[in-house]
Amino acid sequence: MPATSSDPVPTLQLASPTSAAWIEQAIRHLDLILLDHANCEKKAAGNALSLLFRYPANGRLVEALSPLAREELQHFERVHRHLQRLGIPIRPLSAAPYASRLNQHLRRSEPEHLLDALLVAAIIEARSHERLGLLGIHVPDPELRQFYLWLAAAEERHWQLYLDLALEQFPAEPVQERLDGLLQVEAEILSTLHPEPRVHS
Amino acid sequence: MPATSSDPVPTLQLASPTSAAWIEQAIRHLDLILLDHANCEKKAAGNALSLLFRYPANGRLVEALSPLAREELQHFERVHRHLQRLGIPIRPLSAAPYASRLNQHLRRSEPEHLLDALLVAAIIEARSHERLGLLGIHVPDPELRQFYLWLAAAEERHWQLYLDLALEQFPAEPVQERLDGLLQVEAEILSTLHPEPRVHS
Repeated sequence: MPATSSDPVPTLQLASPTSAAWIEQAIRHLDLILLDHANCEKKAAGNALSLLFRYPANGRLVEALSPLAREELQHFERVHRHLQRLGIPIRPLSAAPYASRLNQHLRRSEPEHLLDALLVAAIIEARSHERLGLLGIHVPDPELRQFYLWLAAAEERHWQLYLDLALEQFPAEPVQERLDGLLQVEAEILSTLHPEPRVHS
Repeated sequence: MPATSSDPVPTLQLASPTSAAWIEQAIRHLDLILLDHANCEKKAAGNALSLLFRYPANGRLVEALSPLAREELQHFERVHRHLQRLGIPIRPLSAAPYASRLNQHLRRSEPEHLLDALLVAAIIEARSHERLGLLGIHVPDPELRQFYLWLAAAEERHWQLYLDLALEQFPAEPVQERLDGLLQVEAEILSTLHPEPRVHS
Protein backbone atom coordinates (compact mmCIF):
# COMPACT_ATOMS: atom_id res chain seq x y z
CA MET A 1 0.00 0.00 0.00
CA PRO A 2 1.69 3.25 -1.05
CA ALA A 3 1.67 6.09 1.46
CA THR A 4 -1.06 8.67 0.98
CA SER A 5 -0.27 12.35 1.21
CA SER A 6 -1.56 12.54 4.80
CA ASP A 7 0.75 9.78 6.09
CA PRO A 8 4.10 10.84 7.50
CA VAL A 9 6.75 9.79 4.96
CA PRO A 10 9.25 7.45 6.64
CA THR A 11 12.72 8.80 6.80
CA LEU A 12 16.01 7.62 8.21
CA GLN A 13 17.56 9.35 11.18
CA LEU A 14 20.56 7.66 12.78
CA ALA A 15 19.82 6.90 16.44
CA SER A 16 23.19 8.17 17.69
CA PRO A 17 25.75 10.56 16.24
CA THR A 18 29.34 9.45 15.67
CA SER A 19 31.59 10.23 18.65
CA ALA A 20 34.58 12.56 18.67
CA ALA A 21 36.60 9.47 19.65
CA TRP A 22 35.92 7.87 16.25
CA ILE A 23 36.98 11.02 14.41
CA GLU A 24 40.25 11.21 16.36
CA GLN A 25 40.93 7.52 15.79
CA ALA A 26 40.21 7.86 12.06
CA ILE A 27 42.41 10.93 11.56
CA ARG A 28 45.29 9.24 13.42
CA HIS A 29 45.03 6.13 11.21
CA LEU A 30 43.92 7.49 7.90
CA ASP A 31 45.90 4.84 6.01
CA LEU A 32 43.81 2.10 7.64
CA ILE A 33 40.59 4.05 7.07
CA LEU A 34 41.40 4.36 3.37
CA LEU A 35 42.26 0.67 3.05
CA ASP A 36 39.09 -0.29 4.90
CA HIS A 37 37.07 2.17 2.86
CA ALA A 38 38.21 0.50 -0.37
CA ASN A 39 36.90 -2.77 1.07
CA CYS A 40 33.63 -1.10 2.07
CA GLU A 41 32.99 0.14 -1.47
CA LYS A 42 33.78 -3.32 -2.86
CA LYS A 43 31.44 -4.90 -0.33
CA ALA A 44 28.71 -2.38 -1.13
CA ALA A 45 28.97 -3.44 -4.79
CA GLY A 46 28.97 -7.10 -3.74
CA ASN A 47 25.91 -6.57 -1.57
CA ALA A 48 23.94 -4.88 -4.36
CA LEU A 49 24.94 -7.70 -6.71
CA SER A 50 23.97 -10.40 -4.23
CA LEU A 51 20.48 -8.85 -4.00
CA LEU A 52 20.28 -9.09 -7.81
CA PHE A 53 21.19 -12.78 -7.59
CA ARG A 54 18.74 -13.43 -4.78
CA TYR A 55 15.79 -11.69 -6.46
CA PRO A 56 16.37 -12.30 -10.19
CA ALA A 57 12.73 -11.64 -11.14
CA ASN A 58 12.38 -8.33 -9.25
CA GLY A 59 12.60 -5.84 -12.13
CA ARG A 60 12.70 -2.83 -9.83
CA LEU A 61 15.77 -4.16 -8.03
CA VAL A 62 17.47 -4.90 -11.36
CA GLU A 63 16.88 -1.35 -12.56
CA ALA A 64 18.05 0.25 -9.34
CA LEU A 65 20.83 -1.98 -8.05
CA SER A 66 22.87 -2.77 -11.15
CA PRO A 67 23.70 0.93 -11.72
CA LEU A 68 24.27 1.27 -7.97
CA ALA A 69 26.76 -1.62 -7.99
CA ARG A 70 28.56 0.08 -10.89
CA GLU A 71 28.76 3.33 -8.95
CA GLU A 72 30.15 1.54 -5.87
CA LEU A 73 32.84 -0.04 -8.06
CA GLN A 74 33.72 3.35 -9.48
CA HIS A 75 34.13 4.65 -5.92
CA PHE A 76 36.26 1.61 -5.12
CA GLU A 77 38.53 2.51 -8.04
CA ARG A 78 38.72 6.14 -6.88
CA VAL A 79 39.70 5.11 -3.34
CA HIS A 80 42.29 2.82 -4.87
CA ARG A 81 43.79 5.73 -6.80
CA HIS A 82 44.04 7.79 -3.60
CA LEU A 83 45.84 4.86 -1.94
CA GLN A 84 48.32 4.88 -4.81
CA ARG A 85 48.71 8.68 -4.71
CA LEU A 86 49.48 8.53 -0.99
CA GLY A 87 51.87 5.57 -1.38
CA ILE A 88 49.78 3.29 0.84
CA PRO A 89 50.37 -0.31 -0.29
CA ILE A 90 47.16 -2.31 -0.60
CA ARG A 91 46.99 -5.35 1.66
CA PRO A 92 44.33 -7.53 3.23
CA LEU A 93 42.60 -5.99 6.26
CA SER A 94 40.19 -7.57 8.72
CA ALA A 95 36.69 -6.10 8.63
CA ALA A 96 35.02 -4.34 11.56
CA PRO A 97 32.25 -6.52 13.06
CA TYR A 98 29.68 -3.83 12.15
CA ALA A 99 28.10 -5.22 8.96
CA SER A 100 28.15 -8.86 10.05
CA ARG A 101 26.50 -7.93 13.35
CA LEU A 102 23.83 -5.95 11.55
CA ASN A 103 23.27 -8.80 9.10
CA GLN A 104 22.56 -11.14 12.02
CA HIS A 105 19.28 -9.24 12.35
CA LEU A 106 18.01 -10.08 8.86
CA ARG A 107 14.92 -12.26 9.14
CA ARG A 108 15.17 -15.41 7.05
CA SER A 109 11.67 -15.78 5.62
CA GLU A 110 10.38 -13.73 2.70
CA PRO A 111 9.27 -11.05 2.20
CA GLU A 112 10.72 -9.99 5.57
CA HIS A 113 14.25 -10.83 4.43
CA LEU A 114 14.04 -8.45 1.49
CA LEU A 115 12.67 -5.65 3.67
CA ASP A 116 15.40 -6.13 6.27
CA ALA A 117 18.15 -6.38 3.64
CA LEU A 118 17.03 -3.09 2.05
CA LEU A 119 16.79 -1.34 5.42
CA VAL A 120 20.15 -2.60 6.69
CA ALA A 121 21.74 -1.48 3.42
CA ALA A 122 20.06 1.93 3.86
CA ILE A 123 21.39 2.23 7.41
CA ILE A 124 24.95 1.30 6.41
CA GLU A 125 24.83 3.90 3.63
CA ALA A 126 23.42 6.48 6.05
CA ARG A 127 26.20 5.86 8.58
CA SER A 128 28.76 6.04 5.77
CA HIS A 129 27.16 9.32 4.66
CA GLU A 130 27.64 10.72 8.17
CA ARG A 131 31.19 9.43 8.67
CA LEU A 132 32.54 10.26 5.23
CA GLY A 133 31.00 13.70 5.70
CA LEU A 134 32.93 14.05 8.97
CA LEU A 135 36.14 13.01 7.22
CA GLY A 136 35.30 15.61 4.56
CA ILE A 137 35.42 18.22 7.32
CA HIS A 138 38.30 16.97 9.43
CA VAL A 139 41.02 15.23 7.38
CA PRO A 140 44.12 17.36 6.80
CA ASP A 141 44.62 16.48 3.09
CA PRO A 142 42.52 18.94 1.02
CA GLU A 143 42.19 16.52 -1.93
CA LEU A 144 40.85 13.86 0.41
CA ARG A 145 38.44 16.34 2.02
CA GLN A 146 36.94 17.10 -1.40
CA PHE A 147 36.81 13.40 -2.21
CA TYR A 148 35.03 12.51 1.04
CA LEU A 149 32.44 15.25 0.64
CA TRP A 150 31.73 14.07 -2.90
CA LEU A 151 31.38 10.50 -1.63
CA ALA A 152 29.21 11.56 1.30
CA ALA A 153 26.76 13.12 -1.16
CA ALA A 154 26.63 9.81 -3.04
CA GLU A 155 26.06 7.84 0.17
CA GLU A 156 23.09 10.06 0.93
CA ARG A 157 21.57 9.25 -2.47
CA HIS A 158 22.21 5.58 -1.78
CA TRP A 159 20.45 5.38 1.58
CA GLN A 160 17.54 7.25 0.07
CA LEU A 161 17.45 4.76 -2.82
CA TYR A 162 17.41 1.73 -0.51
CA LEU A 163 14.71 3.33 1.62
CA ASP A 164 12.67 4.17 -1.50
CA LEU A 165 12.98 0.56 -2.70
CA ALA A 166 11.65 -0.61 0.66
CA LEU A 167 8.76 1.87 0.54
CA GLU A 168 7.84 0.90 -3.03
CA GLN A 169 7.48 -2.72 -2.01
CA PHE A 170 6.22 -2.58 1.57
CA PRO A 171 3.61 -0.48 3.41
CA ALA A 172 5.01 2.62 5.11
CA GLU A 173 4.05 1.73 8.67
CA PRO A 174 5.91 -1.59 9.03
CA VAL A 175 8.85 -0.07 7.13
CA GLN A 176 9.13 2.74 9.68
CA GLU A 177 8.66 0.35 12.59
CA ARG A 178 11.34 -2.09 11.40
CA LEU A 179 13.65 0.75 10.45
CA ASP A 180 13.41 2.26 13.92
CA GLY A 181 14.22 -1.12 15.48
CA LEU A 182 17.24 -1.65 13.24
CA LEU A 183 18.47 1.90 13.88
CA GLN A 184 18.50 1.11 17.59
CA VAL A 185 20.48 -2.07 16.91
CA GLU A 186 22.95 -0.10 14.79
CA ALA A 187 23.49 2.54 17.49
CA GLU A 188 24.05 -0.25 20.02
CA ILE A 189 26.68 -1.92 17.78
CA LEU A 190 28.59 1.37 17.49
CA SER A 191 28.22 2.33 21.15
CA THR A 192 31.63 0.81 21.92
CA LEU A 193 34.45 2.07 19.69
CA HIS A 194 36.06 -0.90 17.91
CA PRO A 195 39.78 -0.86 18.84
CA GLU A 196 40.92 -1.19 15.22
CA PRO A 197 40.40 1.96 13.14
CA ARG A 198 37.76 1.31 10.49
CA VAL A 199 35.06 3.28 8.65
CA HIS A 200 32.55 1.50 10.89
CA SER A 201 34.65 1.03 14.06
CA MET B 1 59.15 -14.56 -16.65
CA PRO B 2 57.77 -12.36 -19.45
CA ALA B 3 57.85 -13.78 -22.98
CA THR B 4 60.77 -12.66 -25.14
CA SER B 5 60.21 -11.61 -28.74
CA SER B 6 61.33 -15.01 -30.06
CA ASP B 7 58.81 -16.99 -27.95
CA PRO B 8 55.45 -17.76 -29.54
CA VAL B 9 52.85 -15.56 -27.78
CA PRO B 10 50.16 -17.76 -26.26
CA THR B 11 46.76 -17.24 -27.73
CA LEU B 12 43.36 -18.75 -27.23
CA GLN B 13 41.79 -20.87 -29.93
CA LEU B 14 38.61 -22.75 -29.02
CA ALA B 15 39.14 -26.48 -29.49
CA SER B 16 35.80 -27.03 -31.25
CA PRO B 17 33.47 -24.70 -33.11
CA THR B 18 29.84 -24.32 -32.03
CA SER B 19 27.50 -26.70 -33.86
CA ALA B 20 24.66 -25.76 -36.18
CA ALA B 21 22.40 -27.58 -33.70
CA TRP B 22 23.14 -24.95 -31.05
CA ILE B 23 22.37 -22.10 -33.43
CA GLU B 24 19.03 -23.67 -34.40
CA GLN B 25 18.15 -24.31 -30.77
CA ALA B 26 19.06 -20.74 -29.82
CA ILE B 27 17.09 -19.10 -32.63
CA ARG B 28 14.00 -21.22 -31.79
CA HIS B 29 14.18 -20.21 -28.11
CA LEU B 30 15.53 -16.71 -28.23
CA ASP B 31 13.47 -15.69 -25.20
CA LEU B 32 15.31 -18.26 -23.07
CA ILE B 33 18.67 -17.28 -24.58
CA LEU B 34 18.04 -13.65 -23.67
CA LEU B 35 16.98 -14.52 -20.13
CA ASP B 36 19.99 -16.78 -19.70
CA HIS B 37 22.26 -14.17 -21.24
CA ALA B 38 21.16 -11.61 -18.64
CA ASN B 39 22.19 -14.13 -15.98
CA CYS B 40 25.52 -14.73 -17.74
CA GLU B 41 26.39 -11.03 -17.70
CA LYS B 42 25.43 -10.81 -14.03
CA LYS B 43 27.56 -13.88 -13.26
CA ALA B 44 30.48 -12.46 -15.24
CA ALA B 45 30.32 -9.35 -13.04
CA GLY B 46 30.04 -11.54 -9.95
CA ASN B 47 33.02 -13.61 -11.03
CA ALA B 48 35.23 -10.55 -11.60
CA LEU B 49 34.15 -9.21 -8.21
CA SER B 50 34.83 -12.50 -6.46
CA LEU B 51 38.41 -12.42 -7.83
CA LEU B 52 38.75 -8.93 -6.32
CA PHE B 53 37.61 -10.29 -2.97
CA ARG B 54 39.89 -13.32 -3.19
CA TYR B 55 43.01 -11.34 -4.13
CA PRO B 56 42.57 -8.00 -2.33
CA ALA B 57 46.27 -7.12 -2.46
CA ASN B 58 46.74 -7.82 -6.18
CA GLY B 59 46.82 -4.28 -7.58
CA ARG B 60 46.81 -5.42 -11.19
CA LEU B 61 43.57 -7.37 -10.69
CA VAL B 62 41.99 -4.37 -8.95
CA GLU B 63 42.86 -2.10 -11.87
CA ALA B 64 41.65 -4.53 -14.50
CA LEU B 65 38.68 -6.32 -12.95
CA SER B 66 36.73 -3.53 -11.28
CA PRO B 67 36.16 -1.71 -14.61
CA LEU B 68 35.46 -5.10 -16.20
CA ALA B 69 32.78 -5.87 -13.59
CA ARG B 70 31.22 -2.46 -14.30
CA GLU B 71 31.14 -3.20 -18.02
CA GLU B 72 29.50 -6.60 -17.43
CA LEU B 73 26.83 -4.89 -15.33
CA GLN B 74 26.23 -2.38 -18.10
CA HIS B 75 25.75 -5.28 -20.51
CA PHE B 76 23.39 -6.90 -18.02
CA GLU B 77 21.32 -3.70 -17.99
CA ARG B 78 21.30 -3.59 -21.80
CA VAL B 79 20.10 -7.20 -22.06
CA HIS B 80 17.45 -6.35 -19.50
CA ARG B 81 16.21 -3.48 -21.66
CA HIS B 82 15.96 -5.80 -24.68
CA LEU B 83 13.90 -8.20 -22.56
CA GLN B 84 11.56 -5.33 -21.72
CA ARG B 85 11.40 -4.15 -25.34
CA LEU B 86 10.46 -7.65 -26.49
CA GLY B 87 7.90 -8.11 -23.71
CA ILE B 88 9.76 -11.08 -22.18
CA PRO B 89 8.98 -11.17 -18.46
CA ILE B 90 12.06 -11.75 -16.32
CA ARG B 91 11.94 -14.90 -14.22
CA PRO B 92 14.38 -17.27 -12.55
CA LEU B 93 16.05 -19.72 -14.94
CA SER B 94 18.27 -22.72 -14.16
CA ALA B 95 21.85 -22.37 -15.37
CA ALA B 96 23.50 -24.65 -17.93
CA PRO B 97 26.04 -26.97 -16.25
CA TYR B 98 28.82 -25.37 -18.38
CA ALA B 99 30.45 -22.94 -15.94
CA SER B 100 30.12 -25.16 -12.88
CA ARG B 101 31.67 -28.08 -14.77
CA LEU B 102 34.55 -25.88 -15.92
CA ASN B 103 35.03 -24.57 -12.39
CA GLN B 104 35.47 -28.13 -11.12
CA HIS B 105 38.84 -28.02 -12.88
CA LEU B 106 40.21 -25.10 -10.87
CA ARG B 107 43.14 -26.26 -8.78
CA ARG B 108 42.78 -25.31 -5.12
CA SER B 109 46.31 -24.35 -4.14
CA GLU B 110 47.88 -21.00 -5.02
CA PRO B 111 49.17 -19.70 -7.34
CA GLU B 112 47.63 -22.43 -9.54
CA HIS B 113 44.11 -21.42 -8.52
CA LEU B 114 44.61 -17.87 -9.76
CA LEU B 115 46.05 -19.08 -13.07
CA ASP B 116 43.17 -21.51 -13.60
CA ALA B 117 40.54 -18.95 -12.62
CA LEU B 118 41.94 -16.44 -15.13
CA LEU B 119 42.14 -19.05 -17.90
CA VAL B 120 38.65 -20.45 -17.28
CA ALA B 121 37.28 -16.89 -17.32
CA ALA B 122 39.16 -16.28 -20.59
CA ILE B 123 37.70 -19.44 -22.12
CA ILE B 124 34.12 -18.58 -21.08
CA GLU B 125 34.53 -15.10 -22.58
CA ALA B 126 36.00 -16.62 -25.76
CA ARG B 127 33.08 -19.03 -26.14
CA SER B 128 30.66 -16.15 -25.49
CA HIS B 129 32.51 -14.13 -28.14
CA GLU B 130 31.95 -16.94 -30.66
CA ARG B 131 28.32 -17.61 -29.77
CA LEU B 132 27.18 -14.01 -29.46
CA GLY B 133 28.91 -13.39 -32.79
CA LEU B 134 26.85 -16.25 -34.29
CA LEU B 135 23.67 -14.72 -32.87
CA GLY B 136 24.77 -11.41 -34.38
CA ILE B 137 24.71 -13.13 -37.78
CA HIS B 138 21.66 -15.36 -37.42
CA VAL B 139 18.94 -13.84 -35.22
CA PRO B 140 16.00 -12.37 -37.17
CA ASP B 141 15.62 -9.15 -35.11
CA PRO B 142 17.98 -6.52 -36.64
CA GLU B 143 18.26 -4.57 -33.38
CA LEU B 144 19.34 -7.74 -31.59
CA ARG B 145 21.82 -8.58 -34.35
CA GLN B 146 23.50 -5.22 -33.88
CA PHE B 147 23.45 -5.69 -30.10
CA TYR B 148 25.02 -9.15 -30.27
CA LEU B 149 27.80 -8.03 -32.60
CA TRP B 150 28.58 -5.13 -30.26
CA LEU B 151 28.66 -7.54 -27.33
CA ALA B 152 30.77 -10.10 -29.22
CA ALA B 153 33.41 -7.42 -29.75
CA ALA B 154 33.41 -6.76 -26.00
CA GLU B 155 33.71 -10.47 -25.17
CA GLU B 156 36.78 -10.65 -27.40
CA ARG B 157 38.39 -7.80 -25.43
CA HIS B 158 37.50 -9.64 -22.23
CA TRP B 159 39.10 -12.97 -23.10
CA GLN B 160 42.18 -11.12 -24.22
CA LEU B 161 42.25 -9.22 -20.90
CA TYR B 162 41.98 -12.40 -18.82
CA LEU B 163 44.68 -14.06 -20.91
CA ASP B 164 46.91 -10.96 -20.58
CA LEU B 165 46.42 -11.01 -16.79
CA ALA B 166 47.53 -14.65 -16.75
CA LEU B 167 50.57 -13.89 -18.92
CA GLU B 168 51.58 -10.92 -16.78
CA GLN B 169 51.67 -13.10 -13.69
CA PHE B 170 52.79 -16.50 -14.97
CA PRO B 171 55.43 -17.68 -17.47
CA ALA B 172 54.13 -18.19 -21.01
CA GLU B 173 54.88 -21.89 -21.32
CA PRO B 174 52.81 -23.22 -18.39
CA VAL B 175 50.05 -20.75 -19.32
CA GLN B 176 49.85 -22.19 -22.82
CA GLU B 177 50.01 -25.75 -21.53
CA ARG B 178 47.26 -25.27 -18.96
CA LEU B 179 45.17 -23.28 -21.41
CA ASP B 180 45.34 -26.08 -23.97
CA GLY B 181 44.24 -28.60 -21.36
CA LEU B 182 41.31 -26.47 -20.24
CA LEU B 183 40.28 -25.82 -23.85
CA GLN B 184 40.02 -29.59 -24.35
CA VAL B 185 37.88 -29.87 -21.22
CA GLU B 186 35.64 -27.07 -22.48
CA ALA B 187 35.15 -28.69 -25.89
CA GLU B 188 34.29 -31.96 -24.13
CA ILE B 189 31.68 -30.24 -21.93
CA LEU B 190 29.98 -28.75 -25.00
CA SER B 191 30.25 -31.91 -27.13
CA THR B 192 26.71 -32.90 -26.10
CA LEU B 193 24.09 -30.21 -26.66
CA HIS B 194 22.38 -29.42 -23.34
CA PRO B 195 18.64 -30.03 -23.86
CA GLU B 196 17.64 -26.66 -22.39
CA PRO B 197 18.45 -23.69 -24.63
CA ARG B 198 21.15 -21.59 -23.01
CA VAL B 199 24.06 -19.39 -24.13
CA HIS B 200 26.34 -22.24 -23.08
CA SER B 201 24.08 -25.24 -23.81
